[in-house]
Amino acid sequence: MSVATSLDAVLSRVDESLPEALERLMALLRIPSISTDPAFKADCARAADWLVADLQSLGFEASARPTPGHPMVVAQGGEGGPHLLFYGHYDVQPVDPLSLWDRDPFDPELQDTPKGRVIRARGASDDKGQLMTFLEALRAWKSVHGRLPCRLTIFLEGEEESGSPSLIPFLEANTEELKADIALICDTGLFQDTAPAIVTMLRGLLGEEMTIRAANKDLHSGMYGGAAQNPIRVLSRILANMHDATGRITIPQFYDGVSELPDAIRAQWQALAFDHATFLGDVGLSVPAGEQDRTPLEMIWSRPTAEINGIWGGYTGDGFKTVLPAEAHAKVSFRLVGQQDPDAIRVQFRKWVEAQLPADCTIEWKGHGNSPAGVMEIDNPAFEAARAALGEEWGRAAAYVGCGGSIPIAGYFKTYLGMDAMLLGFGRDDDQIHSPNEKYDLECFHKGIRSWARLLAKLA
Amino acid sequence: MSVATSLDAVLSRVDESLPEALERLMALLRIPSISTDPAFKADCARAADWLVADLQSLGFEASARPTPGHPMVVAQGGEGGPHLLFYGHYDVQPVDPLSLWDRDPFDPELQDTPKGRVIRARGASDDKGQLMTFLEALRAWKSVHGRLPCRLTIFLEGEEESGSPSLIPFLEANTEELKADIALICDTGLFQDTAPAIVTMLRGLLGEEMTIRAANKDLHSGMYGGAAQNPIRVLSRILANMHDATGRITIPQFYDGVSELPDAIRAQWQALAFDHATFLGDVGLSVPAGEQDRTPLEMIWSRPTAEINGIWGGYTGDGFKTVLPAEAHAKVSFRLVGQQDPDAIRVQFRKWVEAQLPADCTIEWKGHGNSPAGVMEIDNPAFEAARAALGEEWGRAAAYVGCGGSIPIAGYFKTYLGMDAMLLGFGRDDDQIHSPNEKYDLECFHKGIRSWARLLAKLA
Repeated sequence: MSVATSLDAVLSRVDESLPEALERLMALLRIPSISTDPAFKADCARAADWLVADLQSLGFEASARPTPGHPMVVAQGGEGGPHLLFYGHYDVQPVDPLSLWDRDPFDPELQDTPKGRVIRARGASDDKGQLMTFLEALRAWKSVHGRLPCRLTIFLEGEEESGSPSLIPFLEANTEELKADIALICDTGLFQDTAPAIVTMLRGLLGEEMTIRAANKDLHSGMYGGAAQNPIRVLSRILANMHDATGRITIPQFYDGVSELPDAIRAQWQALAFDHATFLGDVGLSVPAGEQDRTPLEMIWSRPTAEINGIWGGYTGDGFKTVLPAEAHAKVSFRLVGQQDPDAIRVQFRKWVEAQLPADCTIEWKGHGNSPAGVMEIDNPAFEAARAALGEEWGRAAAYVGCGGSIPIAGYFKTYLGMDAMLLGFGRDDDQIHSPNEKYDLECFHKGIRSWARLLAKLA
Repeated sequence: MSVATSLDAVLSRVDESLPEALERLMALLRIPSISTDPAFKADCARAADWLVADLQSLGFEASARPTPGHPMVVAQGGEGGPHLLFYGHYDVQPVDPLSLWDRDPFDPELQDTPKGRVIRARGASDDKGQLMTFLEALRAWKSVHGRLPCRLTIFLEGEEESGSPSLIPFLEANTEELKADIALICDTGLFQDTAPAIVTMLRGLLGEEMTIRAANKDLHSGMYGGAAQNPIRVLSRILANMHDATGRITIPQFYDGVSELPDAIRAQWQALAFDHATFLGDVGLSVPAGEQDRTPLEMIWSRPTAEINGIWGGYTGDGFKTVLPAEAHAKVSFRLVGQQDPDAIRVQFRKWVEAQLPADCTIEWKGHGNSPAGVMEIDNPAFEAARAALGEEWGRAAAYVGCGGSIPIAGYFKTYLGMDAMLLGFGRDDDQIHSPNEKYDLECFHKGIRSWARLLAKLA
């Protein structure tokens, strides 16, 4: 068979066997593998065992590996071609409040909705439905070709929704077994529900908590007002100085390591025609509030931020109290991009704040999270192959996109296994992951399987 | 007798009869007239009755007038000369925490301390000891002259420490009976413990509470950070703009009605040699933080302020949460001086804040206190007479001083009775009023009585 003919055969097999694939997903969804609740420990083990059996039926050497928490499923199979590691997680979020669900979260059902057919259940989108897209693509491939497409490692976690306490020790203890040419991570979504997307930029995070103190006790503003420092005023002034009139952050050397977007990526983002009016309108806003002359997508994907996440000081109860408080507090965080160095920025920020403290004021610091940005190396041919495969399947060019939040697993693969990762997935914004009535569109499940089949055909 | 001879006789009588005067004060101090606690209602009535009897023994027509709360003591007596009203209050603060008292707060005792003899009891300084200085001066006068020095109205309140709920209705219902040429109010102190002082400026107060809202719900800073407005940032920037680099308030027309200090008052204040290092040092500060080129006394007495009394928004608990909050709040107050109009400033402030709101932000206001500054008319000859009398008694020039806080009674006399008031008293900063172990220096009681005798000699 030619490559094209063979891919057609695999895609046909995917289409024909969709009802059985759906049955398998339903079986996995019936297992209430809530990782954070010890009451469901046996169910987590059962989900791991179900996946081990499913992988073994595909010819993998698969096992559930014990950890201090829930088991890791690891499988090895296939040969030749690039060595791919696939990552997903079989654990799910709790279902509270149960009263807001229209049906039992662990009794999955195919439902017709105005927007199409959906698979309704906890975990349908996050992440059981997504991880099964890859396994079903392998099943169709094997059924056509009699073998797996290339050397594959499957790595399925059972603690992703509860902070991954066993993950790093497991990666450290199993480096050789898990290291592959590239990791494929299926736990993200389509861009604005329609455009296939590969996440190549993840912002990092730096958190700081500050307490500014002036007088040694709360003062009465009648007696001292005008002569005594007010730490809330000092704090407000410093926080107001963090941005200039154009929205740029004023901390010295803050932008060290921040690169301009490559033209190719900029072109892809422009082609996405991001609907920022809807993005902001959904939360009651209309005007992008970040740096002037930056597009909204740059603001949330490729530009660093300084945000005040919390502030408090003085009298905050009902009524009024004319107090000059002894102290005022703020929690500030920075989203980091590119090569920004969290440690260096922490030092610069503290120095910059302290230089603005007036006489009689002292400051106390508490450092919080500290993670650099994740920047995927897209040199690996898997990236362009994936972009082409996704574009062919979805009828729309796929883009390398950013993600304003953090997905730690990609960074862990890089740090502990020295392996690049490619994040792609088929979730939609309305999947209600972590919320009642989670769903996964049948179209996403179906085209997700087909997408992986296309990608495997290009890589194998 | 010449005026000088007759004054000497009165002062001698004060000195000779100090032990009996002290006994009378002790008797009043033994009555636990805590106005805020209903358990002490009968004691408040008993204190009022005790004063009625004391006033009757001086020849007054005196009575305890019922109110919905505690009685008002009103007495009329004497004739000729200016018509003086004397105001004090017979109620006291609660005594909690009792464990911090060295003895029963209502078992007064004369104690020797390193700083001299003190009368130790709740209410010794605030305000029973102070009000008795006036009554004892009258007693000495009457004992020498056989009559009261001039036409006098005595007005003693029993609810000053519990918000004076009956005061305004009582003033309105008894305007004709209470109106005099001037009110003498004895509820203040010496300046920095040594300089006799007459309070002629009281700052007013305007309070505002503001809530700035942006998105219609809390947002995740990973998803929206950079593109969405952060109301804490908006609030901080506006609050930081309230003052310019010199400490001057930037709200348009804010300084309308603020006058420069007259040269005579400025000279008096300079003569006070205010020890701002101690004033600030006592609370852990060292540098006056108000407007540049203003003296510390100006800052707290004759200049208006804008202070942030409370601020809150976002996540304020332990740890960190990368939230972009939907709203942020602040409580702001202004101390007002001279002829500043609280209503006009409220309008100006709101307009000024609202002009700085960026797109997508809304604001909600809640108005709090609203009182103009109190500026005493010192044209009445009683003022210069009092300054001379105090200077002669204390051996140090008396000054017209300001008071950063508010003493509402002076304003009420002006508003409801059209009567100016003169505030003078003999308390010291370490009297521990409202706190455990309240005391009144025997020297203050004694020289307080003598001070009133001197003033009455000048006015009668």
